[in-house]
Amino acid sequence: MASEIKNLDKMCVHTITTKPLEFEVACAKYAALGVKGISIWRDAVAGLDPGTVISCLRKNDLTPVSYVRGGFFPALDPGKRAAAIEDNLHMLQEAAGMEIPLLVLVCGSEPGQSLQTSRDQIRDGIESILPRARELNVKLAIEPLHPMYADTRSAITSLKQANDMTEYFQDESLGIAVDVYHLWFDEDLEQQILRCGRNKKLFAFHICDWNLPTTDMLNDRGLMGEGCIPLKQIRTWMEDAGFSGFNEVEIFSNRFWKEDQERFLDKIKNAYLVHS
Amino acid sequence: MASEIKNLDKMCVHTITTKPLEFEVACAKYAALGVKGISIWRDAVAGLDPGTVISCLRKNDLTPVSYVRGGFFPALDPGKRAAAIEDNLHMLQEAAGMEIPLLVLVCGSEPGQSLQTSRDQIRDGIESILPRARELNVKLAIEPLHPMYADTRSAITSLKQANDMTEYFQDESLGIAVDVYHLWFDEDLEQQILRCGRNKKLFAFHICDWNLPTTDMLNDRGLMGEGCIPLKQIRTWMEDAGFSGFNEVEIFSNRFWKEDQERFLDKIKNAYLVHS
Repeated sequence: MASEIKNLDKMCVHTITTKPLEFEVACAKYAALGVKGISIWRDAVAGLDPGTVISCLRKNDLTPVSYVRGGFFPALDPGKRAAAIEDNLHMLQEAAGMEIPLLVLVCGSEPGQSLQTSRDQIRDGIESILPRARELNVKLAIEPLHPMYADTRSAITSLKQANDMTEYFQDESLGIAVDVYHLWFDEDLEQQILRCGRNKKLFAFHICDWNLPTTDMLNDRGLMGEGCIPLKQIRTWMEDAGFSGFNEVEIFSNRFWKEDQERFLDKIKNAYLVHS
Repeated sequence: MASEIKNLDKMCVHTITTKPLEFEVACAKYAALGVKGISIWRDAVAGLDPGTVISCLRKNDLTPVSYVRGGFFPALDPGKRAAAIEDNLHMLQEAAGMEIPLLVLVCGSEPGQSLQTSRDQIRDGIESILPRARELNVKLAIEPLHPMYADTRSAITSLKQANDMTEYFQDESLGIAVDVYHLWFDEDLEQQILRCGRNKKLFAFHICDWNLPTTDMLNDRGLMGEGCIPLKQIRTWMEDAGFSGFNEVEIFSNRFWKEDQERFLDKIKNAYLVHS
């Protein structure tokens, strides 16, 4: 049984979820709702001074959970691979500057080469940035993506592959972000979550739902309870495997982005309390 | 290495690929191109007399490969499950009447219950129709679908699960249809194709490509060579595992359905010869 959710103490919202809101407005609205955690997308704070971000988080009593999103390591051109590594080093610096403890990696995939070659380049990319991550005390989380994103977004399409990667590195700074949207159908999910927990690699937990039907491959995620993902079941597995962090609401939705964002946040709160 | 493709002797086209064409027109155009096999979608021959279908196939020297598509066994309501079984029995009768040797099963999934429960109902459904399939000498092929269809189309989302199912039944009439679109990203694909071959369950092979980007989850499949599926690699694995049947072109595409279908068939021929 998943633990009972009685309040928003473990609720975190990704800024992308309320994309139309400016960062400082988003922070104020999350705080007014009672949300305690925030995961910050790079675009949301572009051009803001790190000090401004930190004081905004403090003023609203928001804990920074993740910085989103690094990765995208594979490329046919070695110059592009080097540029991706450089960009990830910048993001680590940015995360450290804003006191965000974790950088999420959407690892990338290059359709002009095999998925295995892309995974090898992901491994090389992670190897290149791990020393800096340790130095800055910013952790890294590999986020395995749904296989429908295997073409260009992630050659890591299962929790098994992400577990393989963290076991290869055996590094305290490298773990995994489990997102229900990408993994809910996996027959092996409970076992791989347990494996991830034994390895102490459950660094993050992202929630939303799978709409019926899904009309857009990227921006039609559902609110918890709207779709067919067994959310409470997966949260139970996460908790049984030792996870006790934030439940991060990450919804990309053309539909919800068109709504009044304050009303949308109310819906998120209710869905979180009832269906997560 | 995949065997060299020098002609269209092993090329089969699914009628859905040229959806705008009436069945008899499609047959004539496939034959004119030099195609030897045809997989027939139920809609394409609705209302046609089986004798008419058979004589049309003979006239055009077309070998019927598959009848598409049975399955859709899971449902919350037992009455609906019984109706699905009844419908599959009808399809077996229809296939036998048109002398089509194989019925492809898109197994189904019910979002209101767990994927495991849906798989149990799929197993029960197959069990209910297998005796009639044997009697009519029509084989059944489980087609594992891409995980993006796990919500309502198939709770069987991997070749591993399809292999598990055929090993459970150990029945000569039950095998598997491997479709590159659904399985190309699977890290375990080569091993599962080999397992399927050892079991003598490689009943069908469907080809197309994965478009970059894919703009529609159902009807935006690509022509061979347009996308990122390692087609020759997968065909090599199929042949190494003992498959020697037709290469079935199955492309659902709003884009191509809008084109002149004869020109589209020319493109298919070229893509087949160069990229399959």
